[in-house]
Amino acid sequence: MGAPVSRRARPAKAPLSREVIVETGLRILDGEGLPALTMRRVAQDLDTGAASLYVYVANRDDLMAAMLDHVLGTVPEPEGGTWRQRLETLIESAVTVMSRHEGLALVALGSIPTSPNALALIERMLTLLGEGGLDPRTNSWAVDLIYLHITAQAAEQSAYNVKGGTTEGNIAAAQRKLDELPADRYPMIVGLREHLLYGGDAREGWALRVLINGILATPAG
Amino acid sequence: MGAPVSRRARPAKAPLSREVIVETGLRILDGEGLPALTMRRVAQDLDTGAASLYVYVANRDDLMAAMLDHVLGTVPEPEGGTWRQRLETLIESAVTVMSRHEGLALVALGSIPTSPNALALIERMLTLLGEGGLDPRTNSWAVDLIYLHITAQAAEQSAYNVKGGTTEGNIAAAQRKLDELPADRYPMIVGLREHLLYGGDAREGWALRVLINGILATPAG
Repeated sequence: MGAPVSRRARPAKAPLSREVIVETGLRILDGEGLPALTMRRVAQDLDTGAASLYVYVANRDDLMAAMLDHVLGTVPEPEGGTWRQRLETLIESAVTVMSRHEGLALVALGSIPTSPNALALIERMLTLLGEGGLDPRTNSWAVDLIYLHITAQAAEQSAYNVKGGTTEGNIAAAQRKLDELPADRYPMIVGLREHLLYGGDAREGWALRVLINGILATPAG
Repeated sequence: MGAPVSRRARPAKAPLSREVIVETGLRILDGEGLPALTMRRVAQDLDTGAASLYVYVANRDDLMAAMLDHVLGTVPEPEGGTWRQRLETLIESAVTVMSRHEGLALVALGSIPTSPNALALIERMLTLLGEGGLDPRTNSWAVDLIYLHITAQAAEQSAYNVKGGTTEGNIAAAQRKLDELPADRYPMIVGLREHLLYGGDAREGWALRVLINGILATPAG
C-alpha cells in the first residue's frame, strides 16, 4: 500500500460537463458493452458521485440520447456528385456511425428525432431531396422513412456485432437451418435460399436505391 | 390464514410445455411489461421451479424468440385482391401483430429469421412478390428489406406504446420543439414542420407503396 497522496498532489480533475459525461459514457459503452453503462459507473470513471451527474443529464435514458446525438454529430458532410449520390453517401455514413455503438440505434428507433445533430442530419436530407425536386409533403415523409431505415439498418448491424459472431458466422448458421427445411412446406425459401442469404454490401446499396426510386415514383399527394 | 389445502384438493397443474410457457410469458409481458418477464416469474406463474422451464426453453432470449414466433403465427392470411393488395395487407398485419407486444420486434430486428412462423411469413411474401413477376434475386432481397421494414415499424410503434404517451402526445411534444427551432439554422425543417409531423396512418400506407414501387423499379441484377 502506498503512502497517502495529498489532494493537492493529484492531477486536477477535468471539470464536469455534459460533453465530458457523454464521452465517458461512450468509452464505457464501446469498451464494455451496454450492461456496463450505468450512471454509477460513469460517475466512478469521472471520480465523482452519481448525484453530481444529474446536474448535467437527467437519467440514463437522457445520457443515451445525448450519446446518440454526439455520435450523429460525427456523420461527415458528403461531398461531390449529384444530390442522389450525396444522399446515398450521407445515409450510409449515418448507418455506419450509428451501428458502431451498441444500443444507440434503438434509442433513435423509439423516439421522434429532436436533438440538434439528429435535426441537422434531417435538415441535410431534406435539402438533398429538395434538390431532387420533391414536393414538400413527399420530401417530409421520405426523410421520415429514410430515417427509420437508417435506424433499422444500424440496429440490425449493431445486434450482429454484439452477438460476437461475425455476420458470416450468423449467415452460415442460418444457411444450415434453411438447408434442412422441407421443400414442400417452404418451396420459395428452399428455391431461393442462396439469394436470400447472400449479397452482402450489395444488398444495402440496392436497398437504398429501392427507397430512393420508390420515393421518386410515389408522390405523397 | 386459511386451513392448509391438501395437495389432492388443488386443481391439477397444467402439464408444462413450450407452448404453455410461451403463453404465460406473453401474458406477463402484455400485463406488466418487459422488465417483469423473467424466467423466475414465468416459473412462479406456472407454479414450478425455473429449472423445470429449462427443459423447454434454453433461456430468456430463447423464450422471447419463441414468443415472437408464436405471435407471428397469428398473422392472418390476406384474402382477395391483387398480389400487391394482399402483400400490403400481410405487411400491415405483421406490423400490427408484432408491435402489440413490447420488445418482440427488437428480437426480430437482431436476428436472421429462421423460426417456423417467421419463415411462413417470408414464404408468403416471396410467393406474392413472385406473382408480381420479380426475378429470384430481386424477390429475395425485397423480402429481406420488407421484413426489416416490418420490424422497424413495429419496434417504433411498440416504443411509443411503452412510453405511455399516445402517439398524439409524442407528436405534440415534438411539435413544441420544432416550433422553437431557429429558421436560419434549420430552414427546411422549419418550413416543412407541418408535413414532417403529421399524416398519421396515411404515411404508413405511403411508405409501403414506396417500398413496393421501388422494388418493382429496381432489379437486383
